[in-house]
Amino acid sequence: MRERRFCWALPVISRKSTALVKEGYWLLGFMATPKIKRDMGKAASLRPAREVTHWDREADVVVVGLGAAGACAAIEASEAGAEVIALERMSGGGGTSALSTGQLYIGGGTPIQKACGFDDTPEEMFKYLMATCGPGEDEAKIRMYCDQSVGHYHWLVEHGVPFKESYYGDGSYTPTDDCLSYSGSEQSYPYCNIAKPAPRGHTVQQDGIEAGAQLMRSLIAAVGKTTVKVQEDSLVKTLVMDDDTRVTGCVVRYEGEEQLIRARKGIVLCAGGFINNRDMVYHYAPELWRCRYRAASDGDDGRGIRMGMGAGGSAKRMETGCIVLPYTVPKILMNGIFVNKRGMRFINEDLYQTTVGEAALLHQEGHVYLICDNECFERPFAPTEIAAVEESVADLEKSLGMPEGVLQNTIEIYNEHAANGDDPIFHKGKQYLQPLTHPPYAALDYRVENSLYTVFTMGGLHTLPTAQVLDPDGEIIPGLYAAGRTTSGLAAQGYSSGLSLADGTFFGRMAGRHLTDRAVPPA
Amino acid sequence: MRERRFCWALPVISRKSTALVKEGYWLLGFMATPKIKRDMGKAASLRPAREVTHWDREADVVVVGLGAAGACAAIEASEAGAEVIALERMSGGGGTSALSTGQLYIGGGTPIQKACGFDDTPEEMFKYLMATCGPGEDEAKIRMYCDQSVGHYHWLVEHGVPFKESYYGDGSYTPTDDCLSYSGSEQSYPYCNIAKPAPRGHTVQQDGIEAGAQLMRSLIAAVGKTTVKVQEDSLVKTLVMDDDTRVTGCVVRYEGEEQLIRARKGIVLCAGGFINNRDMVYHYAPELWRCRYRAASDGDDGRGIRMGMGAGGSAKRMETGCIVLPYTVPKILMNGIFVNKRGMRFINEDLYQTTVGEAALLHQEGHVYLICDNECFERPFAPTEIAAVEESVADLEKSLGMPEGVLQNTIEIYNEHAANGDDPIFHKGKQYLQPLTHPPYAALDYRVENSLYTVFTMGGLHTLPTAQVLDPDGEIIPGLYAAGRTTSGLAAQGYSSGLSLADGTFFGRMAGRHLTDRAVPPA
Repeated sequence: MRERRFCWALPVISRKSTALVKEGYWLLGFMATPKIKRDMGKAASLRPAREVTHWDREADVVVVGLGAAGACAAIEASEAGAEVIALERMSGGGGTSALSTGQLYIGGGTPIQKACGFDDTPEEMFKYLMATCGPGEDEAKIRMYCDQSVGHYHWLVEHGVPFKESYYGDGSYTPTDDCLSYSGSEQSYPYCNIAKPAPRGHTVQQDGIEAGAQLMRSLIAAVGKTTVKVQEDSLVKTLVMDDDTRVTGCVVRYEGEEQLIRARKGIVLCAGGFINNRDMVYHYAPELWRCRYRAASDGDDGRGIRMGMGAGGSAKRMETGCIVLPYTVPKILMNGIFVNKRGMRFINEDLYQTTVGEAALLHQEGHVYLICDNECFERPFAPTEIAAVEESVADLEKSLGMPEGVLQNTIEIYNEHAANGDDPIFHKGKQYLQPLTHPPYAALDYRVENSLYTVFTMGGLHTLPTAQVLDPDGEIIPGLYAAGRTTSGLAAQGYSSGLSLADGTFFGRMAGRHLTDRAVPPA
Repeated sequence: MRERRFCWALPVISRKSTALVKEGYWLLGFMATPKIKRDMGKAASLRPAREVTHWDREADVVVVGLGAAGACAAIEASEAGAEVIALERMSGGGGTSALSTGQLYIGGGTPIQKACGFDDTPEEMFKYLMATCGPGEDEAKIRMYCDQSVGHYHWLVEHGVPFKESYYGDGSYTPTDDCLSYSGSEQSYPYCNIAKPAPRGHTVQQDGIEAGAQLMRSLIAAVGKTTVKVQEDSLVKTLVMDDDTRVTGCVVRYEGEEQLIRARKGIVLCAGGFINNRDMVYHYAPELWRCRYRAASDGDDGRGIRMGMGAGGSAKRMETGCIVLPYTVPKILMNGIFVNKRGMRFINEDLYQTTVGEAALLHQEGHVYLICDNECFERPFAPTEIAAVEESVADLEKSLGMPEGVLQNTIEIYNEHAANGDDPIFHKGKQYLQPLTHPPYAALDYRVENSLYTVFTMGGLHTLPTAQVLDPDGEIIPGLYAAGRTTSGLAAQGYSSGLSLADGTFFGRMAGRHLTDRAVPPA
């Protein structure tokens, strides 16, 4: 096996991001991918097997993409005795997983949850995910994942992924090397009334917020302990299908040559999402294009999804995305209130930042402000402009071009209730209720064009919990599997942080197991 | 040719709907399709041409589905000299078009617009559609359609579609035999500031609101004057594709037998949308499933879209739908205000009912009420329950379970401005601004579960303005065309009434022309 290099664009980012992360501007790490190539290449046109005269390489299982999903698929298949080739288009594995914060949504009573004093059960986790991962939630996937979540934690640990037995607090990421945090809306109305809250964000142990790199170092090291053959610098151009519409291999561009690789049992597409493909985003998810920051590596150009579609796979919920509106750090900002362009509130501000982001972008035209008074104002962690500062709310609404009286009215009502520790209209948690009565008043600019809405796509191939890809009639396509953001996963819509790495690692594993006729692991 | 029967489910509907239409409950016409079959059959698995040993019939062009799109495709192709077979799964053509209100969105200065004293230009029409048909609007289609719209009107008239030279007024449909009406948000904020308003809804001349039947009688009569061979009771099961990935024919179920029909030049899929396919709606557009009334014939089970996907076509914007919230008749109801479950306004109530329906369902959880006082209350045209009636607004908000004070506050502010003929917050037109001060106050129940939200799907195959179907890479699939609600059309999202019949008739024609190498008609 060639020596693996952990480059995954980190050299590109590091100069920029090391300094920025120190200033707390971690989101800018994703600025490494501002350039969008117009031509994303062709991927959907199949190569008929009858045109293949020879195979350059072959294996039982071929994995496309060596991010979290691909690594786990490769490990499971290899450990079950299959011969596996893993193909990675970059010069090193990692993909978008390596650029992430390294947080996985795991629960149901993990050792770390127990050690930190949190009760959780698969049933409470199931209720929370069913309430938040829709509409259109995939109950079968959610059910299986909740039942298997603790086992999945152990599998990750056994394969060298480090987690520290510690609780960090609330938040989408952990700037320390701590593990556990609330990474969704578990504690907020209405979800706190639907399922017993528990923190389920499990961040890989790593100082700083780029724990995804550590996750991928661990998983790729685990791949290295197997017989998996990793081939880098290998762009999979398209799939090979035989006359029985079975996927039997793929066409690869490797060292300037075309290479044909046979997959005796099947191919697993783990090639990420499509946020870096401008045309696909425009056609399938145009709202998402308005977000300036794409949480993705260059590889997220939808090749995997297009290859799957070309093989007859149905892509579903292609309009959906994880939309992060970064306002929750420092937490005191949650004492402020979000208003739309008319000066009206529209949400409880203590909901998770992805839920607020979705509401702001999709329901409020991406035109919202966070209103603070002098008591709760602080510079947000993510760089944010101030749209206006005024000594009175009346002047503030004027500066913002809002209709006269509405913001004043909104704040008057909010303050009246907040003084009683109450928010009967939106039910924000009591700890964030403080009347906004201390001038000056500031409006933080969370308009989508001026702010740091961060996004990746959530739509993708329609798969069974076994990771088998389905066609538009709901029929299984023989030999074709997919996992991670190449698929529509646990969250058909409505995101809690850690669900994508959960999706990728778990359903990648399920692909590897199904391909080698291993049963789903016991709970 | 067999004698054509105009049955298209009208016998089923008529008993029910004749009485109901008299009472004004036209929407219930669509109740003819309440039963959703779970198994919608298979459509996506191709038949390889090499497995076809003989063709039972052949023609230059095969049209699948004889609704508005299919009829127009067949006419154009036939008039250009092509041999055409049109296949219809029912015992008579018509499809959902025949069940519609027979309104087409046409403008840019038609003879009827002129005769009725309305100025319009292709440019103003373009500006309006570009502002309302997105995000993700298809500029090329909109541009071509606006430039060709007057010509399209003449084509329809030349082919026997009757329009009366008269103006009806505002509204999504015309209960008289009149023609012209505002069928979108042209006169409402903000669109009235973007494009010069003109009525563009052209309803086919027919007493009553089922003018779609007249449209289809006319178009099918026009088909009858050509050499098109119509074959009814013919369900197209799947497409035939050759080794060059060209669509060369289709497999048909006809009189209990399998029939293979060759299409020398191409196939045009005009088989409607998918709102009557429960699984497809759940997977692609789960919000739409909440609407109780589906504006569709049984045939709208997505077969056409699935066949196209099976042939490699990309389906886009599958989450979108036309969502009608029927509250605008009688118009005095627009003097009321819509509020969400918290008692807050969210829209100007004079926007078109599809825009209000989309906002209510997608942005307000489908949980809205129309609040009226005794002056503006009347029984709505569509049957609507009254959620509460009270002598005071305070009691009304209590009855509705709203947080105390919010609805009172909303109405107080609204009344204050309305008394001055002003609505600075949402900009409802002056003619609908009347303070709500006369008790009792009523809340009409426009919650999605209790109301008559009427819906059809707008997502479908991604096509060029020539009606050629594209694959996920944006490549043309040789021999495959589609039009009407089998495609994503003029409105990628954001509907004005008449756009689907416009889409179907116009791009059906473009398919027929492109297949016969005729240029797009001159403007």
